[in-house]
Amino acid sequence: MVQYVGVENMVRLIGSVGIESYLIGLAGYIEDDFRRWASFEKAPRVASHSADGVIELMPTSDGASYAFKYVNGHPKNTRSGLQTVTAFGVLSDVETGYPRLLSEMTLTTALRTAATSAVAARHLARKDAATMAIIGLGSQSEFQAFAFKALLGIRKLRVFDIDPLATAKFLANLGQHDFEIEVAASAQEVVLGADIITTVTADKLNATILSDNMIGAGVHINAVGGDCPGKTELQSDILLRADVFVEFPEQTRIEGEIQQMAADFPVTELWRVIMGEAAGRRGRDQITIFDSVGFATEDFSALRYLRDQVVGTDYFDEIDLLTEPEDPRNLFGLLGQTGPFPRSIPGIR
Amino acid sequence: MVQYVGVENMVRLIGSVGIESYLIGLAGYIEDDFRRWASFEKAPRVASHSADGVIELMPTSDGASYAFKYVNGHPKNTRSGLQTVTAFGVLSDVETGYPRLLSEMTLTTALRTAATSAVAARHLARKDAATMAIIGLGSQSEFQAFAFKALLGIRKLRVFDIDPLATAKFLANLGQHDFEIEVAASAQEVVLGADIITTVTADKLNATILSDNMIGAGVHINAVGGDCPGKTELQSDILLRADVFVEFPEQTRIEGEIQQMAADFPVTELWRVIMGEAAGRRGRDQITIFDSVGFATEDFSALRYLRDQVVGTDYFDEIDLLTEPEDPRNLFGLLGQTGPFPRSIPGIR
Repeated sequence: MVQYVGVENMVRLIGSVGIESYLIGLAGYIEDDFRRWASFEKAPRVASHSADGVIELMPTSDGASYAFKYVNGHPKNTRSGLQTVTAFGVLSDVETGYPRLLSEMTLTTALRTAATSAVAARHLARKDAATMAIIGLGSQSEFQAFAFKALLGIRKLRVFDIDPLATAKFLANLGQHDFEIEVAASAQEVVLGADIITTVTADKLNATILSDNMIGAGVHINAVGGDCPGKTELQSDILLRADVFVEFPEQTRIEGEIQQMAADFPVTELWRVIMGEAAGRRGRDQITIFDSVGFATEDFSALRYLRDQVVGTDYFDEIDLLTEPEDPRNLFGLLGQTGPFPRSIPGIR
Repeated sequence: MVQYVGVENMVRLIGSVGIESYLIGLAGYIEDDFRRWASFEKAPRVASHSADGVIELMPTSDGASYAFKYVNGHPKNTRSGLQTVTAFGVLSDVETGYPRLLSEMTLTTALRTAATSAVAARHLARKDAATMAIIGLGSQSEFQAFAFKALLGIRKLRVFDIDPLATAKFLANLGQHDFEIEVAASAQEVVLGADIITTVTADKLNATILSDNMIGAGVHINAVGGDCPGKTELQSDILLRADVFVEFPEQTRIEGEIQQMAADFPVTELWRVIMGEAAGRRGRDQITIFDSVGFATEDFSALRYLRDQVVGTDYFDEIDLLTEPEDPRNLFGLLGQTGPFPRSIPGIR
């Protein structure tokens, strides 16, 4: 049988652990896996593009476990009450090829994206960062807020969305969770006094959410929303003034903010910073950017964490995704149409 | 909710429809999809190789539906009571990117492989073919037998496996299903008088299951077992005497029997034969080979057929693989930690 964690069990699990504890544990797995970056099989995602969106498969393996995520991105979906992004994933044993865990990954992707942002910010933001601006109050925004609170102690939020309903949703979701939230009337206003700026808008077109004149010295920009070809949030001038950190350069140059830049635009891989092989923040006035697009190893970490979290709990079901014949070569026998075994096997003389 | 067809429901469904009817229906879908070959997005499978086997993802899309299959191949698995091959798959709507159907595909792969073999043989074997030899009586063998009976009326089987237990299993499985079965003592013997030869052995190494002197004029060879790099069953001399038909040449040249041949070895695509654009069998003495490796469109067809088969039945479950928030932008709201909505949204003056 294969373990299955559906949405209901995922919600129960997060409720039981607590979202901040869950994010802290998940961030630990993500950071551990960044530390053994070389042991992962890495490839750009396998994308199937259509007029309305994209369906992607994101596989990776560390030689012991194999994971892949299925994820779609369909910006028009919200018009018909559907989500822009849904996802699920599987964790398998490399030795046997057998899937062991199937899980919802819509919530899990939101959690791992936020946890990865916070891991990066721990290495890249000023140590005394106290205020974060969030531009874009869609599905991902609350998860970013909780991750930065849980991992960096950021309680002061300045937030902006062009849609007042999104703002109201954000305030309702976070109102009773010990944040200090100020709502700004524009993107220009929201960045004032912020030590960290998180951009997490959902437009598919190239947009300028942050322009160069909005960015003061010492800021860390957590650029989450620009994550596919044609979708960026930062004016390119900002990238020229800043040091840019990425997950997997081959993928980020296609999907991230740096798709606006030349193919040899200098970037630093986050895993090198975590390992101490490359500098993160070097001084108070440096502008740092985490150009986040989401990479398969983060989903691997999230599935590995989930697998370990559900051990000994009832937060999973078992499903019959795999055949389990008594004799592995007797697949047909499962159909229950087998007669008696022959006493002897006739030759063909 | 996503429809889920696990192994138990698949067994019930096949039992209800009858395996021969199921194969006939499935073959119809496979042939229909071969007829609209140009409308599919086609790519070689995405493989993750390890010391003991391979895990592959096989995606395709016709612009309306998207499908992928996860399948492993681990020859050593049988030593520990596990199957060499297990699989599952998903069918999604391209317009929304939402998965609609998740299914076991171990049984389904065996069925679609056999149905595809029979579709090819209908176009390539002599019309009066009455006897099939099967070499290799593992998991796939019974499904091949049923597909050729259902689609070509082949009742006379001559069978051989080096393992008497595999032969006993085959005889028990097929004994009460109106076949005439003769067991041969060797591969040399088994091909005598056969109009169709199906090779479906499981060795990973290059093997010579059929050598040139065993193949008489007019035979159709259904070469199923050679399906990955380093795994072939036919002596290359046979390929030089025969006309070779393939699913997707780019993949077959890597995985099929023709991996032994030069990169420009002439092959004919099966879909062209089905469409009447290329000749299949041209005469009684021609030797034809279907160099089958299994292609993503066949899994697409199998999932599409399954989706249509379960409509109005109870042969599926519904699982909560996807989040379904009332407001698609309020993913966080699913966690049940939302407070009251604010009556008005404060500005930041």
